[in-house]
Amino acid sequence: MSTKPSRELEAIPNPNPERDYEVTMVCPEFTCLCPRTGQPDFATFTIHYRPGPSIVELKSLKLYLWSFRDEGHFHEAVTNQVLDDLVAAIEPREMTVEAKFNIRGGITTTVTAKHEG
Amino acid sequence: MSTKPSRELEAIPNPNPERDYEVTMVCPEFTCLCPRTGQPDFATFTIHYRPGPSIVELKSLKLYLWSFRDEGHFHEAVTNQVLDDLVAAIEPREMTVEAKFNIRGGITTTVTAKHEG
Amino acid sequence: MSTKPSRELEAIPNPNPERDYEVTMVCPEFTCLCPRTGQPDFATFTIHYRPGPSIVELKSLKLYLWSFRDEGHFHEAVTNQVLDDLVAAIEPREMTVEAKFNIRGGITTTVTAKHEG
Amino acid sequence: MSTKPSRELEAIPNPNPERDYEVTMVCPEFTCLCPRTGQPDFATFTIHYRPGPSIVELKSLKLYLWSFRDEGHFHEAVTNQVLDDLVAAIEPREMTVEAKFNIRGGITTTVTAKHEG
Amino acid sequence: MSTKPSRELEAIPNPNPERDYEVTMVCPEFTCLCPRTGQPDFATFTIHYRPGPSIVELKSLKLYLWSFRDEGHFHEAVTNQVLDDLVAAIEPREMTVEAKFNIRGGITTTVTAKHEG
Amino acid sequence: MSTKPSRELEAIPNPNPERDYEVTMVCPEFTCLCPRTGQPDFATFTIHYRPGPSIVELKSLKLYLWSFRDEGHFHEAVTNQVLDDLVAAIEPREMTVEAKFNIRGGITTTVTAKHEG
Amino acid sequence: MSTKPSRELEAIPNPNPERDYEVTMVCPEFTCLCPRTGQPDFATFTIHYRPGPSIVELKSLKLYLWSFRDEGHFHEAVTNQVLDDLVAAIEPREMTVEAKFNIRGGITTTVTAKHEG
Amino acid sequence: MSTKPSRELEAIPNPNPERDYEVTMVCPEFTCLCPRTGQPDFATFTIHYRPGPSIVELKSLKLYLWSFRDEGHFHEAVTNQVLDDLVAAIEPREMTVEAKFNIRGGITTTVTAKHEG
Amino acid sequence: MSTKPSRELEAIPNPNPERDYEVTMVCPEFTCLCPRTGQPDFATFTIHYRPGPSIVELKSLKLYLWSFRDEGHFHEAVTNQVLDDLVAAIEPREMTVEAKFNIRGGITTTVTAKHEG
Amino acid sequence: MSTKPSRELEAIPNPNPERDYEVTMVCPEFTCLCPRTGQPDFATFTIHYRPGPSIVELKSLKLYLWSFRDEGHFHEAVTNQVLDDLVAAIEPREMTVEAKFNIRGGITTTVTAKHEG
Repeated sequence: MSTKPSRELEAIPNPNPERDYEVTMVCPEFTCLCPRTGQPDFATFTIHYRPGPSIVELKSLKLYLWSFRDEGHFHEAVTNQVLDDLVAAIEPREMTVEAKFNIRGGITTTVTAKHEG
Repeated sequence: MSTKPSRELEAIPNPNPERDYEVTMVCPEFTCLCPRTGQPDFATFTIHYRPGPSIVELKSLKLYLWSFRDEGHFHEAVTNQVLDDLVAAIEPREMTVEAKFNIRGGITTTVTAKHEG
Repeated sequence: MSTKPSRELEAIPNPNPERDYEVTMVCPEFTCLCPRTGQPDFATFTIHYRPGPSIVELKSLKLYLWSFRDEGHFHEAVTNQVLDDLVAAIEPREMTVEAKFNIRGGITTTVTAKHEG
Repeated sequence: MSTKPSRELEAIPNPNPERDYEVTMVCPEFTCLCPRTGQPDFATFTIHYRPGPSIVELKSLKLYLWSFRDEGHFHEAVTNQVLDDLVAAIEPREMTVEAKFNIRGGITTTVTAKHEG
Repeated sequence: MSTKPSRELEAIPNPNPERDYEVTMVCPEFTCLCPRTGQPDFATFTIHYRPGPSIVELKSLKLYLWSFRDEGHFHEAVTNQVLDDLVAAIEPREMTVEAKFNIRGGITTTVTAKHEG
Repeated sequence: MSTKPSRELEAIPNPNPERDYEVTMVCPEFTCLCPRTGQPDFATFTIHYRPGPSIVELKSLKLYLWSFRDEGHFHEAVTNQVLDDLVAAIEPREMTVEAKFNIRGGITTTVTAKHEG
Repeated sequence: MSTKPSRELEAIPNPNPERDYEVTMVCPEFTCLCPRTGQPDFATFTIHYRPGPSIVELKSLKLYLWSFRDEGHFHEAVTNQVLDDLVAAIEPREMTVEAKFNIRGGITTTVTAKHEG
Repeated sequence: MSTKPSRELEAIPNPNPERDYEVTMVCPEFTCLCPRTGQPDFATFTIHYRPGPSIVELKSLKLYLWSFRDEGHFHEAVTNQVLDDLVAAIEPREMTVEAKFNIRGGITTTVTAKHEG
Repeated sequence: MSTKPSRELEAIPNPNPERDYEVTMVCPEFTCLCPRTGQPDFATFTIHYRPGPSIVELKSLKLYLWSFRDEGHFHEAVTNQVLDDLVAAIEPREMTVEAKFNIRGGITTTVTAKHEG
Repeated sequence: MSTKPSRELEAIPNPNPERDYEVTMVCPEFTCLCPRTGQPDFATFTIHYRPGPSIVELKSLKLYLWSFRDEGHFHEAVTNQVLDDLVAAIEPREMTVEAKFNIRGGITTTVTAKHEG
């Protein structure tokens, strides 16, 4: 398996597709660049979903989040994009993505977006 | 962009207007004056909203909160005013403003006001 | 304004009577006497309300809570009395009073009473 | 008043029977014996109720919990018994008893039982 | 009683079958192997249920969780298996199994599965 | 034994006078009056000592601290007085008294005084 | 091995007698009776030592602490007795016993005694 | 007494000048301006001293700290200035001033300066 | 590099051998078996050292700690063995190994051993 | 002033060079790459120093730490390099650099290096 940043999210067949259960993944190592100043931003992403046909493979999620490292993204837009990409990859029954960005200008911003399948 | 205190809140077009998502901003550096005694008050503002056509620009929010620094305001009134100003500026689907003021006379006061769009 | 303990609660006109908002006041310095043993009791009062025509003035609340210092009161009764007095003074849309008393005989007691306007 | 362990719970007339309010009592000093091994067990009991005609007297509750000290009891059974005894003694509108037992064999057990009056 | 790892879960008759109450067991010492790399994984299991005819015996639960120690299991599958095994053993009115796995690749994963009886 | 506030501290013979050991007592329920404004002050006293011929009896310490309830005292003076009174009563090898007063005017004050026997 | 309370402490040969290392054991389940009132007291014992020829066997320590359950003991005396008994049993290079008793009369007491071998 | 910001610190005669004791004051409401950008800075000042002939009056300290509100000051310089002003006003045996400034540019800065009398 | 449990610790040349600095590694995933009962034990190892000619390679440390998984070890002995093995592998100027074992029989045990080079 | 990553650290004249005081800066947003795998590492740097002729300018420190973002560095080496660069730039009386790296392979590593001027 690759160890390069990649937008490819690997979907694994859900081992228990008949049950409506939940998965929560906390990812405190997200970093991208501010599209206005070019300076680094940092965030903790919390991804909560109820699996449909697939679950997301842990390592591919790590490489996916890494792929934003050198790109400029606004807080609100990147949170929605991560949600859209994950929904497209694994078609969950429901998914919520929360991104808590580090303090800037004395203000901490958290963006939360939800997909109902 | 200016770096002066200002009541002008900058509205940015919502990058994902089709989705009903949430933004939470925690601002622990609010200070104004007590209208009775003239002495400084301090508060943490937490602004939670579901964006409509616009989102609030982070730096303009910082300058907006700064603009209260030399003014006298009652706890309840200033919390409602911040809510009204933000609602006017970005027309959210829903917004809640919570202001937690530092202890005075052995009592801590928190004011929470909500706008349903 | 007086600085003596007093049962008089000062009502201030609500600056935003048209909005249904919330105020929470935490008062960790309540003390009265145990009516059985005469020994001091200590409690933290948390007062939560949605203002109607009036809000409660902070200093008068401090003097009001002070007025119980030399009186004997049972936990349940004094919590309900504080609620009744505040409701009579400011006629809130809704009010909850919670009193968390310090541990006695290895047991911590919290009493919570609610008024729906 | 006695200072011996006793199953007698003292009911005091509710000073505010017309209002539906809540009382929470946290009792971290419960101990009994394991009926299988005879070794001591330890638990924190949290008793939450909405008083009906009576409230429970604090000292009699302490002596009541003490009365289990030298007896063997299973976690689930003793939690339900405490609930039954308290309900019989004070006839609450509603009562919940939660018992959090100390870790045994690497596992912490909490039992929660509720009576709706 | 045995002290060997075992898939046998011991069911004890519920001492209070007429009441719909709750039991929560926190088990921070679960370990199995990663089926991809063969390396150890660690998790805290929290088992919450409302007992039906039986409750689970504490020691047999410890030996049951131990029985996974040398086996390879995916996070999602093993959480569902523990739920299925416990449901088969004690037929609860309702049961939830939450497994919080230690951080891997900078990501913490929690799986939560629920059975409604 | 009395249950009235009293400046009398009871000294009990030290059961282990040959060993140089330590006792720490945390007393979070101290209250007196501000000698300038007459309003209540609150503090947590922590008393640490290495016993000499005597130890302090717990209940008499409670009644002693209670005896300041209706008196006006400055923070620094009352902390030193408590130290002096305890040293006179039990002649410790060493004693430290720390008094942490509740916040006033946005400032929390702690006074710490030490006696070397 | 017995599972009865016992004052017998088992000494095991120190597996590394040539190195001066440290062992700390935290025992939160100590209970005895108050010799004045007969009511239960509770404490957390923390035992810290540098082993000499022997270390203390964990289960015998548990049974030893259990043996105080039905006896009346003053805080200071029982802490020194536990230290004396452990020193006699395993002859450590150094040992400290700290006993933190639960709050009584609004005061928490901790006793700390040390033996230098 | 005035309620205006003022550089005047009031010295009160030390009530226990013969004893070498300690006073610690925590002041979380300091704010001044950044001399480079003009934007507000916020800090918590902790003042620790061993009194000499005088102690500092609490209210005058509050007004003193307030007096920096509209002035531009560098972190390191203002901390040293507060120490110098306090030393000049009350001539302590020893004093330490610690100022913990809020995060700026992702970095939190604390400055600690000490005077030995 | 291997991914099997192994007693081989890899030593890497210290990149800054001329400076006396410190490295602390916290390893919360240690598990072995109890040599008396055969049941699993769990511990958090904290390894603190001042490097000499070598530093320890992180992955080899992980595989080393894993190698104890199926072996029986007493708390005191295994802590000293880990210290001895690490000292032999990298010859530090100084090293301390602390192992905090999970609670057994109501008692938590921590063993701390130190090597001075 | 530039807003690009840069190894240039700006030294500002110490405003109080005659006093031996301390500055502590906590920088939780350090990230570089692992020189073995190329994957991102994250750390919190804490820089503590007693200023000599100069202090470090806050923004230049931010840009300096940013300059490691795309480079491969071992934990021990990069901590020592940051210390060396800062010592060369501002010649402190003393400086300590602590870098706490995020968990990898179940192990958290902290490196601490000190310069005595």
